[in-house]
Amino acid sequence: MFKKQILLSARLGSCQALNPFRANAVSRFYASGKAVALTADTYSDKVQRDSKYKKLDEKDLLFFRDILKDGNYMISNEQDLEFYNEDWMRKYKGQSQLVLKPKTTEQVSEIMKYCNAQKLAVVPQGGNTGLVGGSIPVFDEIILSLSNMNKIRSFDSVSGILKCDAGVILENADNFLAENGYIFPLDLGAKGSCHVGGVCATNAGGLRLLRYGSLHGTVLGLEAVLPDGTIYSSIDALRKDNTGYDFKQLLIGSEGTLGVITGVSILCPSRPTSTNVAFLAVSSYETVQKVFVGARKELSEILSAFEFMDGKSQLLTGRYLKADHPIESGDYPFYVLIETSGSNRDHDMEKLETFLANAMEEGLVDDGIIAQDEAQSQSLWSWRESIPEASAHDGGVYKYDVSIPLKDLYGLVEAAETKLNEANLVDIDSNDKPVVGAIGYGHLGDGNLHLNVCVREYNKNIEKTLEPFVYEWIQEKQGSISAEHGLGFQKKNYIGYSKSDVEIKLIKDIKNHYDPNGILNPYKYV
Amino acid sequence: MFKKQILLSARLGSCQALNPFRANAVSRFYASGKAVALTADTYSDKVQRDSKYKKLDEKDLLFFRDILKDGNYMISNEQDLEFYNEDWMRKYKGQSQLVLKPKTTEQVSEIMKYCNAQKLAVVPQGGNTGLVGGSIPVFDEIILSLSNMNKIRSFDSVSGILKCDAGVILENADNFLAENGYIFPLDLGAKGSCHVGGVCATNAGGLRLLRYGSLHGTVLGLEAVLPDGTIYSSIDALRKDNTGYDFKQLLIGSEGTLGVITGVSILCPSRPTSTNVAFLAVSSYETVQKVFVGARKELSEILSAFEFMDGKSQLLTGRYLKADHPIESGDYPFYVLIETSGSNRDHDMEKLETFLANAMEEGLVDDGIIAQDEAQSQSLWSWRESIPEASAHDGGVYKYDVSIPLKDLYGLVEAAETKLNEANLVDIDSNDKPVVGAIGYGHLGDGNLHLNVCVREYNKNIEKTLEPFVYEWIQEKQGSISAEHGLGFQKKNYIGYSKSDVEIKLIKDIKNHYDPNGILNPYKYV
Repeated sequence: MFKKQILLSARLGSCQALNPFRANAVSRFYASGKAVALTADTYSDKVQRDSKYKKLDEKDLLFFRDILKDGNYMISNEQDLEFYNEDWMRKYKGQSQLVLKPKTTEQVSEIMKYCNAQKLAVVPQGGNTGLVGGSIPVFDEIILSLSNMNKIRSFDSVSGILKCDAGVILENADNFLAENGYIFPLDLGAKGSCHVGGVCATNAGGLRLLRYGSLHGTVLGLEAVLPDGTIYSSIDALRKDNTGYDFKQLLIGSEGTLGVITGVSILCPSRPTSTNVAFLAVSSYETVQKVFVGARKELSEILSAFEFMDGKSQLLTGRYLKADHPIESGDYPFYVLIETSGSNRDHDMEKLETFLANAMEEGLVDDGIIAQDEAQSQSLWSWRESIPEASAHDGGVYKYDVSIPLKDLYGLVEAAETKLNEANLVDIDSNDKPVVGAIGYGHLGDGNLHLNVCVREYNKNIEKTLEPFVYEWIQEKQGSISAEHGLGFQKKNYIGYSKSDVEIKLIKDIKNHYDPNGILNPYKYV
Repeated sequence: MFKKQILLSARLGSCQALNPFRANAVSRFYASGKAVALTADTYSDKVQRDSKYKKLDEKDLLFFRDILKDGNYMISNEQDLEFYNEDWMRKYKGQSQLVLKPKTTEQVSEIMKYCNAQKLAVVPQGGNTGLVGGSIPVFDEIILSLSNMNKIRSFDSVSGILKCDAGVILENADNFLAENGYIFPLDLGAKGSCHVGGVCATNAGGLRLLRYGSLHGTVLGLEAVLPDGTIYSSIDALRKDNTGYDFKQLLIGSEGTLGVITGVSILCPSRPTSTNVAFLAVSSYETVQKVFVGARKELSEILSAFEFMDGKSQLLTGRYLKADHPIESGDYPFYVLIETSGSNRDHDMEKLETFLANAMEEGLVDDGIIAQDEAQSQSLWSWRESIPEASAHDGGVYKYDVSIPLKDLYGLVEAAETKLNEANLVDIDSNDKPVVGAIGYGHLGDGNLHLNVCVREYNKNIEKTLEPFVYEWIQEKQGSISAEHGLGFQKKNYIGYSKSDVEIKLIKDIKNHYDPNGILNPYKYV
């Protein structure tokens, strides 16, 4: 039997204060206090401003002011621009002189039409929570922020179809749905800041893809402005519609390079009335996989998340949270968070307890805890969701978000750690070395690993040690160099490690076909 | 309480013999005995052969023989060609003089390269179970049958990823998966004949979309030959891969107009260990909707199908099956089939019985039955799955597969029936009138109605009464003229009722861009 004493809610008491962290997962870190270096300087060997793009002038500003009707919807003073020019990891910094914040799709269309005619480069920006520098200008691109387009358009409580502006914050959308008994079919740590439109442009995966599937399946329609200003809309599509090529699918995951998403229609499932969270300690990566296979079989339709974390990720998270780990019986090499979501509390708990009892009996799980209420569930989640912040806490983080066949998945973390040690770059405690450590965690249920190399500063030596080594390692295992974060600026030059020449040719051809002037999100993606 | 007497398995005894029908859902009907008219003759006012396409000559035959190595992989005698030239509804008939049955992707590539250079038109054909004439030539197009590419390539029992040739029959794929504890995430009446590749090309929805979502979400990768012979492959993609535009999504639902799908990689869920089926009698369409809302809420994660059927569809199915209806207590205007799939029989049955008890108590359900074993489940399903055959049994059927907002869904059947009656075309019993009746059924859970107009013969008068009337009615309700069957030949000219000018322009542009010579599946789609 699963030990009853580890179910005691008292053990979770210390975590409850952590809940607020969740909504702030993308708040910025200024731990190092250093100014962020310009991307153009850091990567001057890799990228130069393309002279085909026009430089912004006074006439352009007048034109935009005329479109937007109100000067409040434009930002052009240096201090206010900083927020839009820097990414939250403080790794990339652009030099845009202008942020436009339209309120309607028609305004976006007029802006794009003008920029296309004038050859002014544009970077669409949502909540600016991206992890590959995709929503930050590299040089002087105009930033087109969707933050003023933030209305729920409609919700049909029979079909579960939500239609909203692209700039609606994910958490706001989910809270709205909760009031109607529904749930947004995607959740991620940045939910308090990221936009629904940005999530689609990124094709974000997040924490519950395991249960609700990818956005390619759940997004029913998009409204978007193409580079020439054309307004494309499939936002009124019903759940099933087989009339012609599904163009919107190209926009999902296009990272703002093909069109500016302005509206989203998405199919939302009924909100589960019963959610359970268990946190388990496991002694090896091999055993983690066995726990996964068992969980998928026994928890089946109620399994909504299967996240794994290595011991070092929990050590750093504990330091960052200044809190005791929920599993107190010792340091374990691996931890697993299992979430179930269903419609009947008794049934779900019976399934979960039976599964855990079996796992304990088979010796797969060394210790564990089940949350007794919603607050405890969130506390346990915080030990997973705070990892990104904990990773960057000492100064910065090199993030690799990759897909690798399950059996080899954790091998990448070990390989990266070895490589960094060989270069004599790592010390978890001493400030003398630039690297704190390499940690691994992620959505095991989706074959998705997050390798985070936690650093005290960004430097070329670390980057050269890691790249292309990490990408070569992934290619050898037939993995993907970007599972859910996208290509952005960071991975633009590495797509060849994941895609064949034919695929890359097709991708470039699509870009050239729809954006012949290349004005949308240049220097990135492909 | 839900009446116990209606749970008696004895009531289902008479249906058990019906199981075999399921696998044969697409067997052909020759009830009328009449020869099928040539599409070129029936629609001579709408379509002429395009003289830009070359006519097949002896040199071409020699070339193909050389590629295929073996004359057995080519069909050119009239009698054998008939099977490939006619659709199963006996509504469309082409005049192809040649069927090619390659065994490898490379052979498909060589064939396409040659046809593109020579401007020979090609129709890719899977199991030939389409319902819009999409896989039948209109004139003398070469038929490229995928039936010889029928191997399972690999299956990963940890991730659930199946890779197979496009020509694998859906039921064979599902049986293979069953042996491994997995299920194909799509099911449809034609499973005994349709191909996995054809299902993707059609973006078929089928019976369990409600549970497992659309192919846009579950298909992980495709291998396909483009019109110029280029072999595109994303078949080794992992579950999550955000590196570039997702080109394969354009192929899903492209109906053979953009590329020839030769291989499929698809994510398969664990096979549910417990399946229950209930069949209910309901007194109005309004009540059917209430039963649906209740079922989705209470059955939630285990609800795997919610099908509705009108009384007339069951009357015709009863005649066709020569069997008594499972619900014997009278003729009801509507019936509902509910399927649950889960991992714990006791839990599932408790949920289903509680739901049904509540529905009875609220007066939503007039009578009902729950299958007691697998054979009874299949018997109940046969009253839903035999409707397409029953519809065509008197001679033919005009099929409309549409999406309409739920509240208006059944209104289309009533409107069509009224229109046909006004034209004095209908008599359910007498052979004096050409129309037997208009029936409605479908995947209510997906907002998907099948309107079948059952006829004793195909004639222009019926067609003119129905079209464009049906499409205009759908457009007024903001529905889709094709939910899951596609456009094919039947709906090519009606896309404007579902798509905007911008969307149609994009679709035509995609077609012209990838198939500039227009050799793939001409006269159809767009």
